[in-house]
Amino acid sequence: MDNAATTRVREEVIEAMKPFFDLDYGNASSLHSSGVSARDAVEESRERAAKCIGVSPEEIFFTSGATEADNMALKGMAFAAKKQGKTHLIVSSIEHHAILHTAEWLESQGFSITRLPVDEFGFVKASELEKAITDKTFLVSIMYANNEIGTIEPIKELSKICAEKSVPFHSDAVQAFSKIPLNLENVSMVSLSAHKFYGPKGVGILVKKAGVDIEPLLHGGGHEFGLRSGTENVPGIVGMAKAMELAKKEMKTEAKRQSRMRDRLFKGILDIPDTRINGHKTKRLPNNVNASFSFIEGESLILRLDKEGVMASTGSACSSPDLEPSHVLLAIGLKPAEAHGSLRLTLGRFNKMKEVGYVLEVLPAVVEDLRKISPFGRG
Amino acid sequence: MDNAATTRVREEVIEAMKPFFDLDYGNASSLHSSGVSARDAVEESRERAAKCIGVSPEEIFFTSGATEADNMALKGMAFAAKKQGKTHLIVSSIEHHAILHTAEWLESQGFSITRLPVDEFGFVKASELEKAITDKTFLVSIMYANNEIGTIEPIKELSKICAEKSVPFHSDAVQAFSKIPLNLENVSMVSLSAHKFYGPKGVGILVKKAGVDIEPLLHGGGHEFGLRSGTENVPGIVGMAKAMELAKKEMKTEAKRQSRMRDRLFKGILDIPDTRINGHKTKRLPNNVNASFSFIEGESLILRLDKEGVMASTGSACSSPDLEPSHVLLAIGLKPAEAHGSLRLTLGRFNKMKEVGYVLEVLPAVVEDLRKISPFGRG
Repeated sequence: MDNAATTRVREEVIEAMKPFFDLDYGNASSLHSSGVSARDAVEESRERAAKCIGVSPEEIFFTSGATEADNMALKGMAFAAKKQGKTHLIVSSIEHHAILHTAEWLESQGFSITRLPVDEFGFVKASELEKAITDKTFLVSIMYANNEIGTIEPIKELSKICAEKSVPFHSDAVQAFSKIPLNLENVSMVSLSAHKFYGPKGVGILVKKAGVDIEPLLHGGGHEFGLRSGTENVPGIVGMAKAMELAKKEMKTEAKRQSRMRDRLFKGILDIPDTRINGHKTKRLPNNVNASFSFIEGESLILRLDKEGVMASTGSACSSPDLEPSHVLLAIGLKPAEAHGSLRLTLGRFNKMKEVGYVLEVLPAVVEDLRKISPFGRG
Repeated sequence: MDNAATTRVREEVIEAMKPFFDLDYGNASSLHSSGVSARDAVEESRERAAKCIGVSPEEIFFTSGATEADNMALKGMAFAAKKQGKTHLIVSSIEHHAILHTAEWLESQGFSITRLPVDEFGFVKASELEKAITDKTFLVSIMYANNEIGTIEPIKELSKICAEKSVPFHSDAVQAFSKIPLNLENVSMVSLSAHKFYGPKGVGILVKKAGVDIEPLLHGGGHEFGLRSGTENVPGIVGMAKAMELAKKEMKTEAKRQSRMRDRLFKGILDIPDTRINGHKTKRLPNNVNASFSFIEGESLILRLDKEGVMASTGSACSSPDLEPSHVLLAIGLKPAEAHGSLRLTLGRFNKMKEVGYVLEVLPAVVEDLRKISPFGRG
């Protein structure tokens, strides 16, 4: 129940990757036949990936993951824009740390950052974005859907505002791709990560539309049209493209199936007293459940659920170890204590309705137990 | 015969990686048991990798490859040093493009770069390094062994000079690790790449000694002790550590075996008229052969050899497609035409002496044929 953190690589993807480890292991930059074969595999994967999201193959840049893609988008655009005297970046306050910490670093390098507030559901308001844009703004970066509370941002509306003002728009679509259709009409750049949809870890994509100028983040041999150097991770790239195709094909059916499980989880969770749902009821990812339980700590909840065989998370996986209250939950108005007592359940294609039943069987007792020993007031 | 470009992932490494794709696929940052299991695999790999090169586990930072490690070392140190008013970087003129192009970018950001010349064999002279260091120098980066001509730099001597002047020293050891013992006593940072020694593509290491301060290149969730964000590529990391252990174990035997093949290749190649060996005769990697054939183009040579079943390279794989004369061969004094007519053969653990015999059987005729149709003067 932690599919937003990572997913199992599916069998078809492993099969697709396999030959590129040992049989067809060439370096895609080599001139000989083994190199040509690797190059063909990379370019075919690029075409397949491009088709899945409706862009041109030349707009696909393979990276080591979404963190790199996010860093590449923000820093690449920042260093390119500086030459034109543009030094202002807008992000939302509920972005992934790959965006927020990159923005913070850019701030330390002299760039100015606006962090847009969100409402109680986590939505960025179009009017706030409009107000924030100045003639120094070089980029707006707003995630497609939030990784913790599943809120789907009004990307069509927000990106249109940017297009009208000729400001490039980037979206971290790590959690959105394969769950909901993406509208990239006015989106200049998009970040994706393979391991979120049954592909391998260590590979991602930055989509960068033609005509959008950025500087490379990784300099070197000039791979990926000169924009991302480093020997291509051929098996990873092949696996990512395969996973994208399969995810795209199953999206509609899976979204329906998973949202039924999600809604049953919400119903069951709300039967537990002193509980609140975080995020919007319908404008959220089909696989995302996020709830807060008063008087208890999320970490203890995760560990107790783990003992019962339920793997869940509190906050995002990336920030789990630091035990800080979630910046997303604080941004939608929760108090630190409430934010601490949050639970995220994220469904995937391997989950079954009977597992949902099991979670709802064990969860109330676990919550009750923890409240009894809680230092936070009750019990 | 192109093992410096990339290598086949060995069976033991594939076996070690396998479970982490589907059985044990957790996110190493998750708090639950699947996350803990992934974390254990990463930390155990870190310990094993550290042991292979004689550093502490906390000095190992997993990256997406050596290009990222090189960028991270140079830019990370540059941005950290700028705060102390240090803005001068020294590199050799025969570095890999991951170093040279990163240095060039830093130059565009206001840093000053010294590119040390090399002698006819490709050696950096200690006296030149000593002269170049100023009180603004924040880093010296000199590769352990050259990827094209195999020249092994006097790293012990060069790094000692830097240590005496308290200037950090970085070495790109991508081609050296697993071929020759590394002396890292006075080396602050080292870059490694798994796919050069029968490990997977898409994973590398930056060794950064304790007390050496750099800024992150990839900002985000704070993975790798806060220095390299991005969900850990667990199978890749496990595979890299395994490949390092195996490579270390076989190094002595393989170096002996491969250098015998190398020397036979040199002998056979020198029997072809109008031919020169590039690099030093003995102070070179045991698996590296580099030669220039007057009057012919390296690219044609590669394609003709490929037809005969021999995969080789001219220049490095990374710069093969751009068809520029090798900056390394120009730096050791070759004329552009000579640099164009170069051939690199790099041996590996899967090569056999009878293959060497075969290369020496077909090469003279291929060279002769190409010279007949050469536009460069003879034939």
